[in-house]
Amino acid sequence: MGQNQSQGQVPQPMPMKPEMTEFWEPQVKVVTPGAMASNQLMPPPSDAVVLFDGKDLSKWKGKDGEAKWKVADGVFTVNKGTGDIETKETFEDYQLHIEWRIPQDIQGQSQGRGNSGIFMQGIYELQVLDNYNNRTYANGQAGSIYKQTPPLVNAMRKPGEWNVYDVIYTAPRFKEDGSLITPARITVLHNGVLVQNNFEIRGDTPYIGLPKYTKHGKGPIKLQDHGDPSKPISFRNIWIRNL
Amino acid sequence: MGQNQSQGQVPQPMPMKPEMTEFWEPQVKVVTPGAMASNQLMPPPSDAVVLFDGKDLSKWKGKDGEAKWKVADGVFTVNKGTGDIETKETFEDYQLHIEWRIPQDIQGQSQGRGNSGIFMQGIYELQVLDNYNNRTYANGQAGSIYKQTPPLVNAMRKPGEWNVYDVIYTAPRFKEDGSLITPARITVLHNGVLVQNNFEIRGDTPYIGLPKYTKHGKGPIKLQDHGDPSKPISFRNIWIRNL
Amino acid sequence: MGQNQSQGQVPQPMPMKPEMTEFWEPQVKVVTPGAMASNQLMPPPSDAVVLFDGKDLSKWKGKDGEAKWKVADGVFTVNKGTGDIETKETFEDYQLHIEWRIPQDIQGQSQGRGNSGIFMQGIYELQVLDNYNNRTYANGQAGSIYKQTPPLVNAMRKPGEWNVYDVIYTAPRFKEDGSLITPARITVLHNGVLVQNNFEIRGDTPYIGLPKYTKHGKGPIKLQDHGDPSKPISFRNIWIRNL
Amino acid sequence: MGQNQSQGQVPQPMPMKPEMTEFWEPQVKVVTPGAMASNQLMPPPSDAVVLFDGKDLSKWKGKDGEAKWKVADGVFTVNKGTGDIETKETFEDYQLHIEWRIPQDIQGQSQGRGNSGIFMQGIYELQVLDNYNNRTYANGQAGSIYKQTPPLVNAMRKPGEWNVYDVIYTAPRFKEDGSLITPARITVLHNGVLVQNNFEIRGDTPYIGLPKYTKHGKGPIKLQDHGDPSKPISFRNIWIRNL
Repeated sequence: MGQNQSQGQVPQPMPMKPEMTEFWEPQVKVVTPGAMASNQLMPPPSDAVVLFDGKDLSKWKGKDGEAKWKVADGVFTVNKGTGDIETKETFEDYQLHIEWRIPQDIQGQSQGRGNSGIFMQGIYELQVLDNYNNRTYANGQAGSIYKQTPPLVNAMRKPGEWNVYDVIYTAPRFKEDGSLITPARITVLHNGVLVQNNFEIRGDTPYIGLPKYTKHGKGPIKLQDHGDPSKPISFRNIWIRNL
Repeated sequence: MGQNQSQGQVPQPMPMKPEMTEFWEPQVKVVTPGAMASNQLMPPPSDAVVLFDGKDLSKWKGKDGEAKWKVADGVFTVNKGTGDIETKETFEDYQLHIEWRIPQDIQGQSQGRGNSGIFMQGIYELQVLDNYNNRTYANGQAGSIYKQTPPLVNAMRKPGEWNVYDVIYTAPRFKEDGSLITPARITVLHNGVLVQNNFEIRGDTPYIGLPKYTKHGKGPIKLQDHGDPSKPISFRNIWIRNL
Repeated sequence: MGQNQSQGQVPQPMPMKPEMTEFWEPQVKVVTPGAMASNQLMPPPSDAVVLFDGKDLSKWKGKDGEAKWKVADGVFTVNKGTGDIETKETFEDYQLHIEWRIPQDIQGQSQGRGNSGIFMQGIYELQVLDNYNNRTYANGQAGSIYKQTPPLVNAMRKPGEWNVYDVIYTAPRFKEDGSLITPARITVLHNGVLVQNNFEIRGDTPYIGLPKYTKHGKGPIKLQDHGDPSKPISFRNIWIRNL
Repeated sequence: MGQNQSQGQVPQPMPMKPEMTEFWEPQVKVVTPGAMASNQLMPPPSDAVVLFDGKDLSKWKGKDGEAKWKVADGVFTVNKGTGDIETKETFEDYQLHIEWRIPQDIQGQSQGRGNSGIFMQGIYELQVLDNYNNRTYANGQAGSIYKQTPPLVNAMRKPGEWNVYDVIYTAPRFKEDGSLITPARITVLHNGVLVQNNFEIRGDTPYIGLPKYTKHGKGPIKLQDHGDPSKPISFRNIWIRNL
């Protein structure tokens, strides 16, 4: 006497364009962070897992097993075309410290200017981009959760200087059937300035389309080889604390 | 020495198609609610504001001042083409009880079958539709927060029977500058079956495009004259408690 | 060079008195729920687990294995001194419907008047008590999460009539090391009136002392044989839906 | 026909002892933060309100109007017996940076060793104490929300070195009738190590008794003249960003 579960054909999702999930207004306000000496590194606390200490990529892997990005002078740099790299170890809830630098002679504009990304659990992207005097869509600039929410302010240092992200991340939890119990949450300080305040992540962070959640367990920190035509980005002093 | 706020022209938002924010999978599971006698009304508690007691639309207004929907036999019915109606009184946080009925001889399919809606604070739509053996996109069926999230299950009664929504709604709060402090939250029981569990509403509920928040104060309960070609929907026994 | 973990003796927790966690002000406002015929039962939806259908206690167990409360006339009644009873099946997140009745000739006052309780996962008590014209401490009256938070309003029916709780419960989640990821949350309608709105439960609900969380998995619905000197309480029409 | 609101006398709250809200177990784990040069100050971002820049207490006031703590060598120090000081300006949601130093020759133990406090909106205390090799109750040590929750770890630097708190604070919101809409929330980094992760503050932070909320608007940053017999605490480099 009750209704039946429908069995019929259903429409396929309609393809979207990338621009449909990009918004440019309101513009993110600029805040100049406090100056720091460029050789000034925040050393890891005693319980941190050091993911890069300036020497090698032994904690990382690439698509073919080995991480092929370039290590020199205590930093490592995207090696275009070798693909994304990710940590061998996987993580759930954590505090992450990571420093990144746009090359001083960066060129290009909007998304084509120093594009990379840091993926929480390999899935949820915290955008890396040069947005020092370079406007792009608000929910795609540095400090954004890509295509979900813009940073609260634009706290970029200029090309050639080191930017710092301090991230507090709580993983999503799923039921056995794959449904979501609690979404992921993220707080981000960019150069010591709050840019995400316990934001509830809505799902993955695709270039095209809407975010959705798919059940997963622990995951790595992934760094993006974006492959855009501008100069490559460098990283240093990466450590993580399991929470 | 810091960067400047950009002043330039920015791209206009790219228009979307309605289908882009509609998803059909996974299908919402059917649950048959407990049977109730059709003349069995849950009377309002002593502190409720009765919005419709079966007699007249004196608590409601239409676009030209007067609510022109039809009252008969203790219920009122959409009067196609006369427009949406809304309460004269406005509300913030509340518990709302509202009953609605799809005509027994309803016709059409998908969204074209008994379409109406109940708008929290005049803005955030809880979908009203006949989804008894009528499939549509999951985030647009009865019990959905329109184009944001599907109901947890499909607890529809069949056309000609009365459906009940019991809603617990917490209004969003905004700062003076218009930015969001806390989003709206909603819990919905459909015929006594939980279909929304403290869902965090993401903004308004447009037919085309993505949800966004715009600062507002108290707002009315608004009912939609959807104007689709099928038979009109009726409502009865509407009461609200300020929380 | 860092500090050491302290190894010394530490003070024992100082014992508290029950009254220290009881507060009487502000008094909970009375709301008279809508009247219902006493033989009017909300039948379970099709996906519910029926925990008591009026016939027997086969879904329940007592401290010695068998549930020894008395079944008669479609209801069951506390059998003083036989101890609490609980469901054989255990649950995590759920919607629970349960009806309970204070005897018409109840006697006593404050907590000594029709005291029982419904424990979520066997641990977190939703208070059952006669608070129809019987004042007690606000965070110990019917609809309270015992000694944590009072009901939003007092929606009691009078002795001899059936009270209904509709509960939406989300279990707490713990890490493997026992620490809390997310606390439990509860929404309660008492006779159709909201009395708990997504309350964040703070831990267990002891008579003496402060709430704390201890890691656990799924748990039963437990009903309390409070053993107070007044007349025993009855229950009927109990069903639950896993969420 | 409904019940009446009770008018009678009610019991007075039973007095508690301070020890009843102090818990010592589990002990908070020690984490040694990364070392920093003692003269290394994080300069304020461009949109910060500088509350102390090393020169004077012009942004602060005391109980008799003037803040009488001592300024010397770019820091200010508690002036015992002159009372708490607080900012003249009041705040709602903010990011706060504040540095504090326990004297190198501190003496005493447990709470009697370098005790002060930083009160959000003048009400909610983030504990300041020397807990370098000094154990006290977990929910009363440095980084705790006093008597509510311990820090996640103990990240103290030793006496004579500067400690840093970076605080993200969201104010509670109240309805006009004084009831709570949303509680306060706080995230705290202690020397760059997460010690509070979006903790939901439960009310004020009394020495004796349980937390409760009382409606308020914007409030100052308040620093405590605890008056314990040990040596006084110093502060420097205080800035705040309205969120």
